[in-house]
Amino acid sequence: MTMSIATTEHTVKAFDTDLQMLDRMIAEMGEHAHRQLMQAVGALKKRDRDCASEVVGNDAALDVLQREIERRAIATIATRQPMAVDLREVVGVLRIATELERIGDLAKNIAKRVIALDGQRMPRHPLKLMSHMTAVATDLLRDVLASYAARDSGKAQKVWSSDREIDWLYNQLFREVLNHMMGHPAILIAGVHLLFCAKNIERVGDHATNIAESVYYIVHGQPLPGERPKMDSTGLPTLPARAPSIVSIA
Amino acid sequence: MTMSIATTEHTVKAFDTDLQMLDRMIAEMGEHAHRQLMQAVGALKKRDRDCASEVVGNDAALDVLQREIERRAIATIATRQPMAVDLREVVGVLRIATELERIGDLAKNIAKRVIALDGQRMPRHPLKLMSHMTAVATDLLRDVLASYAARDSGKAQKVWSSDREIDWLYNQLFREVLNHMMGHPAILIAGVHLLFCAKNIERVGDHATNIAESVYYIVHGQPLPGERPKMDSTGLPTLPARAPSIVSIA
Repeated sequence: MTMSIATTEHTVKAFDTDLQMLDRMIAEMGEHAHRQLMQAVGALKKRDRDCASEVVGNDAALDVLQREIERRAIATIATRQPMAVDLREVVGVLRIATELERIGDLAKNIAKRVIALDGQRMPRHPLKLMSHMTAVATDLLRDVLASYAARDSGKAQKVWSSDREIDWLYNQLFREVLNHMMGHPAILIAGVHLLFCAKNIERVGDHATNIAESVYYIVHGQPLPGERPKMDSTGLPTLPARAPSIVSIA
Repeated sequence: MTMSIATTEHTVKAFDTDLQMLDRMIAEMGEHAHRQLMQAVGALKKRDRDCASEVVGNDAALDVLQREIERRAIATIATRQPMAVDLREVVGVLRIATELERIGDLAKNIAKRVIALDGQRMPRHPLKLMSHMTAVATDLLRDVLASYAARDSGKAQKVWSSDREIDWLYNQLFREVLNHMMGHPAILIAGVHLLFCAKNIERVGDHATNIAESVYYIVHGQPLPGERPKMDSTGLPTLPARAPSIVSIA
């Protein structure tokens, strides 16, 4: 099948229009996921069940957006038959939408735990660490979305290597919460919920890292070089020598 | 563009060949994910670090398979331009591969926790519940893969409504482990790891349910009717009245 120049130009233009629309939808999903995460952790800090219920209710919009992005991306591949970087762009969109949907699920999970906690008191300092972790995670999310919007693989690579900080904070928080739980069995359940919430935030960092990998792949057509910078062991000064490791497990 | 009958027949046959290959790869991924899960929980029961390390090492094969399935599925969409049920087949393959890759991640996470636990003793009865949960989850996985292989939406629907049992077992286990932790602060860390492992198995059930939804979508071209049968609240007889809920939070 040979195409006339007019047809080719038409197809190229149509592809660009498709991609711009997909980009806008990714930006919309990114903003929504970012907002959900902030609101979920805000609800946790204030033990605000109503605010948490709102987060749970607003998650469906992300699922709908993801399905719509998938539908459009597939249609673009089928009708425009993009090659090389153009094809990578659309595959990248599919991957990034999946990651953003998962981030939304994590925010929803935190919100559900706020509801389950039903206003119970929680240790104050771990909550502060949690806010700090969330700030780092949402910054990573914002930066990686900006790197996608600008197709800036350098910025993506920076996000990719910043995930360590979240892992470090997670380990700190894990240790503090466990110590609290040892001294105060009454907060055991609240403590466990807090650990799961912290794990969720840590996983947001992983998803931001995955998005960074997709951005790099779109731009360069190959995976990011080098091992993923993941902390897998740390010392555990506050726990008995034979205690099993409580390090960040991804 | 009009195609001659010969071209059409060629395209149809080529599409069928592509799809058969994708089906085989999904089956391979499914078996591998199933095996990883069984081995990870086996390692947990025996506190076998070597066995766990093997699981961690074998996860990469699933990631490679997923990327290869994605590559081939995208190429099929671009070159064969499938419509209607054919397009749903390929989109279904993309979705199912993602779910299987996540199941592999969950198995790897359990294995990492086995390594972190470093042979520490764990409460016996929760471990039994955990084995039972795993048996249910791996059965669901096997059944949903069979429903995909046979494009049997009735079987898929059955898996979809069986996820409840895992949720129930998870709640049982959660309660037992927490009670243990209250009475034996020495097992606090082991208990927390066990809770995370149990949560992972519960999430395997969710992924099997997602696959069931994809099978239904392939066959019928629309989502499964009705609300997802998810347990979201249960009584907590063994915990104090004001204790926050420890129900399955998905």
